[in-house]
Amino acid sequence: MHLIHGGDVYSARQKMKQEPLDFSANINPMGMPPGTVRAAADALQQCTQYPDPLCRELRAALAAYEGIPAEQIVCGNGAADLIFRIVAATHPQRALLLEPTFAEYEQALRSMDCSIAYFPLQESEGFVLPEAFLQQLTPEINLLFLCNPNNPTGRTVSPALLQEIWKRCEEAGILLVVDECFNEFLEHPEQNTLKGVLKTGANSVILKAFTKSFAMPGLRLGYGLCGNGDLAERIFSCGQPWGVSIPAQAAGVAALQEQGYLERMRRLIQTERRWLSENLARLGLCVFPSEANYILFRTETEISLRERMEQRGVLIRACGNYRGLDDRYYRIAVRGHDENERLIAALKCALEE
Amino acid sequence: MHLIHGGDVYSARQKMKQEPLDFSANINPMGMPPGTVRAAADALQQCTQYPDPLCRELRAALAAYEGIPAEQIVCGNGAADLIFRIVAATHPQRALLLEPTFAEYEQALRSMDCSIAYFPLQESEGFVLPEAFLQQLTPEINLLFLCNPNNPTGRTVSPALLQEIWKRCEEAGILLVVDECFNEFLEHPEQNTLKGVLKTGANSVILKAFTKSFAMPGLRLGYGLCGNGDLAERIFSCGQPWGVSIPAQAAGVAALQEQGYLERMRRLIQTERRWLSENLARLGLCVFPSEANYILFRTETEISLRERMEQRGVLIRACGNYRGLDDRYYRIAVRGHDENERLIAALKCALEE
Repeated sequence: MHLIHGGDVYSARQKMKQEPLDFSANINPMGMPPGTVRAAADALQQCTQYPDPLCRELRAALAAYEGIPAEQIVCGNGAADLIFRIVAATHPQRALLLEPTFAEYEQALRSMDCSIAYFPLQESEGFVLPEAFLQQLTPEINLLFLCNPNNPTGRTVSPALLQEIWKRCEEAGILLVVDECFNEFLEHPEQNTLKGVLKTGANSVILKAFTKSFAMPGLRLGYGLCGNGDLAERIFSCGQPWGVSIPAQAAGVAALQEQGYLERMRRLIQTERRWLSENLARLGLCVFPSEANYILFRTETEISLRERMEQRGVLIRACGNYRGLDDRYYRIAVRGHDENERLIAALKCALEE
Repeated sequence: MHLIHGGDVYSARQKMKQEPLDFSANINPMGMPPGTVRAAADALQQCTQYPDPLCRELRAALAAYEGIPAEQIVCGNGAADLIFRIVAATHPQRALLLEPTFAEYEQALRSMDCSIAYFPLQESEGFVLPEAFLQQLTPEINLLFLCNPNNPTGRTVSPALLQEIWKRCEEAGILLVVDECFNEFLEHPEQNTLKGVLKTGANSVILKAFTKSFAMPGLRLGYGLCGNGDLAERIFSCGQPWGVSIPAQAAGVAALQEQGYLERMRRLIQTERRWLSENLARLGLCVFPSEANYILFRTETEISLRERMEQRGVLIRACGNYRGLDDRYYRIAVRGHDENERLIAALKCALEE
């Protein structure tokens, strides 16, 4: 069984003597809110029952939080579960993906024998999606996964272009899935969401997760905001009914009550991303501008930086297995200041090695 | 979104004033072992990390417990997750199911547009699988789901016939998936498992779960024992990599260390099943012999027994939505003695209504 993602502290532990410092997974460095951990712990007492398949309490809380009717919301065992369910529910013949982007879209599409067209983002354009992309949105395409901000580049689609993409998708009959799992990390989340179009009955899904923003990847909780209730229903029925565990449902409800937590996180991320970007550049690395809680950079030549950092107890994401990138590219998460200083110190040593 | 299963205490709570007494889900009445709850609670502290996609510690523990190499074991978000993954991994054109049986096989097959042949079990034969079933195992069939003991009937396939079914499936190129989720509730689990054939590289999967035997449906944890490592790998890759949450993995490892727990449960179930069967029969119900922790029975005419029991605060499983059964059939779980007495008392009143 093959692992292609960051966040694999388990392999690292087998090799390291110390607990690894993980910059390879893009998680809110503030950790799970204590009230959310307590809610999950209390919920363990109810685990002799099946979870509510309809996640009624959680979906009602999400409806209030997102301003989208509960019938248009479908919850999953992490957003990754929903990616597979969306593909299973819609059986696309041909899909369109950015290059590079999050690898699970391709995994899910390939597991259903869907053919894939790739749109290569250009390093010379800072990996920003250009207007020329619109020409790709033709009726042969059934499904578009658009990660916004994109992973691993950290760039958003401009709001005007996003609207154009949506319109073109509607015209061409393309199911538009916008992965907004990192939206909450942006300086202005509300300016970069496609949520507004969901009120029009759009053939679109917005993917979100508690995973990154509330730092609970180990609990597994994601959700989809759908343009209509039928689509939500179809996605729900293309997988088991009890996908979301009781602790995850309880943690989600509690997390949405955390006043100010995401706002504090955004301030931390803005400050630390600036600090990290500057310090990475000072090390002579080619740093790509990011708007998210992770930063893509490139070394001059292939130097096995991941291995060198691992020897120093720090995990970073080698990006050689992203389409369109190679072994000179790495992604790091933005964490708290002390950890970021440790990262830069370790990188300095590793680069001088 | 439509609910077709038992265990829906959430809908019931909205209607009832009291907490429902749930006989509609077939869960070990002894509850989750306290050490297992503690392990899950401790694991919440690690949930700011992704789960181990490979479930290394859990699969190693399962390998020792089941006597099957870890590479042949795949873990899932409950056995239901694995049912969908198996169908996605093998894309069967035509599958064979018993009638009646657990509804998720059909759900998963239909979601992948697989055509289904049904083999009706006969009430006159006590819903026991007859030898004539072997004739159905022809090369047109790609996949057979066999629930043993079957749900909702509680009957096992005779060990000799099970061996014959396996041989015929191997000859005909049929993937044989035996759902042994209720195996641990049988008086002699080891005599009723197909596990022996997995050492031969068989094209078979045995499904098991912690859900029922360790009373943790709310945490979601199931696993498949595969005839070979390739099959395990394919099932793993037909879904997201982080399917099993950190608390579920930790609970699973802890549960397998519970000495004597399953043996005590088996003694309780044997005693209480006998008591319940006798008392159901005394109420004039047609009770079908069961070997599992649930009992199927039939009323003379359709009398809305589920609704009548719900008004008394007790949930039972109406079986009208099982293929091959109708609204006269009901399934109840075997629980602890006090609860079983409450069930019988409530049934007595409901039947006299």
